[in-house]
Amino acid sequence: MKNREVRLKNYPDGLPARNCFEVVEAEIAPLSQGQMLIRNVWMSVDPYMRGRMNPGRQSYVPPFELGKVMDGGAVGQVVESRGGAFAVGDYVTGMLGGWRAYNVSSGAGLTKIDPRINVPLSAYMGVMGMPGITAWYGLLKIGKPKAGETVFVSAAAGAVGALVCGIAKLKECRVVGTAGSAGKCNWLKDTVGVDAAIDYHTAGDGLTKALRDAAPKGVDVYFDNVGGAHLESALEVMNPNGRIVACGMISQYNNPDQTGVRNLFNIIGKRILMQGFIVSDSFSEMPAFIAEMGAWVAAGKIKWEETVYEGLEKSPEAFIGLFSGDNLGKALVRIGPDKA
Amino acid sequence: MKNREVRLKNYPDGLPARNCFEVVEAEIAPLSQGQMLIRNVWMSVDPYMRGRMNPGRQSYVPPFELGKVMDGGAVGQVVESRGGAFAVGDYVTGMLGGWRAYNVSSGAGLTKIDPRINVPLSAYMGVMGMPGITAWYGLLKIGKPKAGETVFVSAAAGAVGALVCGIAKLKECRVVGTAGSAGKCNWLKDTVGVDAAIDYHTAGDGLTKALRDAAPKGVDVYFDNVGGAHLESALEVMNPNGRIVACGMISQYNNPDQTGVRNLFNIIGKRILMQGFIVSDSFSEMPAFIAEMGAWVAAGKIKWEETVYEGLEKSPEAFIGLFSGDNLGKALVRIGPDKA
Repeated sequence: MKNREVRLKNYPDGLPARNCFEVVEAEIAPLSQGQMLIRNVWMSVDPYMRGRMNPGRQSYVPPFELGKVMDGGAVGQVVESRGGAFAVGDYVTGMLGGWRAYNVSSGAGLTKIDPRINVPLSAYMGVMGMPGITAWYGLLKIGKPKAGETVFVSAAAGAVGALVCGIAKLKECRVVGTAGSAGKCNWLKDTVGVDAAIDYHTAGDGLTKALRDAAPKGVDVYFDNVGGAHLESALEVMNPNGRIVACGMISQYNNPDQTGVRNLFNIIGKRILMQGFIVSDSFSEMPAFIAEMGAWVAAGKIKWEETVYEGLEKSPEAFIGLFSGDNLGKALVRIGPDKA
Repeated sequence: MKNREVRLKNYPDGLPARNCFEVVEAEIAPLSQGQMLIRNVWMSVDPYMRGRMNPGRQSYVPPFELGKVMDGGAVGQVVESRGGAFAVGDYVTGMLGGWRAYNVSSGAGLTKIDPRINVPLSAYMGVMGMPGITAWYGLLKIGKPKAGETVFVSAAAGAVGALVCGIAKLKECRVVGTAGSAGKCNWLKDTVGVDAAIDYHTAGDGLTKALRDAAPKGVDVYFDNVGGAHLESALEVMNPNGRIVACGMISQYNNPDQTGVRNLFNIIGKRILMQGFIVSDSFSEMPAFIAEMGAWVAAGKIKWEETVYEGLEKSPEAFIGLFSGDNLGKALVRIGPDKA
């Protein structure tokens, strides 16, 4: 039986390009005892993957290897089992062995999707999955916003950012977000319900002033997905005892020179706490997250958006779109139909 | 009766110079009811004062005003009282109204020195005073070093840094410090007892490598007094779950361009906590500090050094010496004899 998979062909120099990837056919070996064949349905592309494409630089996960399949989160359905952990027909989610049409797995590290929770399968790549718990844990456990405080979110129209905005509104905060187009800003205001949205392309060097205008009482919590100039502006406008949730620095991932942040003295003068985290730090909180986020989703209190790329072959475009600003909300690749 | 006082004459442009200050004679007005006349004995110069010499930039304390007396911590003796809070002959410490020979005070904000504690008066400007509680609180309450961990201290031969090194050794940590000369490095190794000392002038661009060599198991706690290149090197060598105690950034205080820190992504990848603080955050811990540090001092377990400038007229030189690397340990100005 044939598989299709996306392999890393070249390490990117700066922004990833289409020729960094190749889609190839591969043979699927017969299942061993204890294994399952899983048909991938939805695949996630995420900014952190860029950190795995620098061969020399050790990130918190090992680099991808040239000629090997790209790895990432997915939702799939068990189509065959020789005594694997899940039954044929079950939907599962986790690191499903890569950007490929089919995966072979024992089930280790995978979670069965509870069919009683009434959300679309794709939500397990977003609001109910890794971006969801990243937003929930980072904002609530590190940022600890209080009602009436101002929360500033960069890349606010992205998979994590939009959920941070939504949760912060549920916690009765003033919410200010940045995004890369007028359309995204309008979506943030009209659908997500933020109090102010800043188009950072339009703001340019005036980002600090725009933030000051949008946050007249200052910023108490900055959820940083961007780093660089966004972080500098946040540091200028933050209030004493502010908290910076250091989640991502997408402005730097394709920047070999790395922009220096020049006003870190504000961390001292304003007694700021800056705490970095990665999503696996939060996994022990998964049941609490599923319960709280599931209730919000069921009550229609959290809004999200997806940008869907059709077909495994489009996964490089989906990934590149993370950095070019093409995607609104969660970027996903539909590898196959929800129901086979 | 005549006073002598040091006034701010010009705001510095970069490094403070002698002509930023002038020493003038001034009249002392007769005491009102409830006031005391205090003869200043020891005066402190501290790096944070530089932050009060930027007229446009609001630090966590208001800027000094041109033509007004410089303010700062001191130890003094009550020489006359019209119903003030302390008795004639008492020694007091606190913000004693400035760089001047005599101060008039009601006693508000001042603390009487306990004559039963057997330390020299000057220690209340150092190990038993503001630098002491800064080191103790920052290292133990924010850095939280565990026995066997590696603590990296910048400006380690300074007033705060040397005490951080000493406390970290008492907590059974490996301690690595940086200082600006071979003599200071030798003092750190031979007297303070650090495990390794790096002359950052000699290390130059090789600071990261020197730190890696001195901290072969990585850095768990970085007590930052310097910022800039030191902070970049620390971020490179820090271990996962490391803590940065953001106490000062002396490399930046006279740098109008502000050096950018380019590798902040390490805060995310290594889940680092960076917490800024200023000494007044710790004042509620003063009794605990006095008890613990007093016991260490009485037992000879904490070493410190003083660089003493003789006479009020030398206070500008003492202050400028903070930035030129002239001072070892705590920089002090002796305004008058301990006993009148």
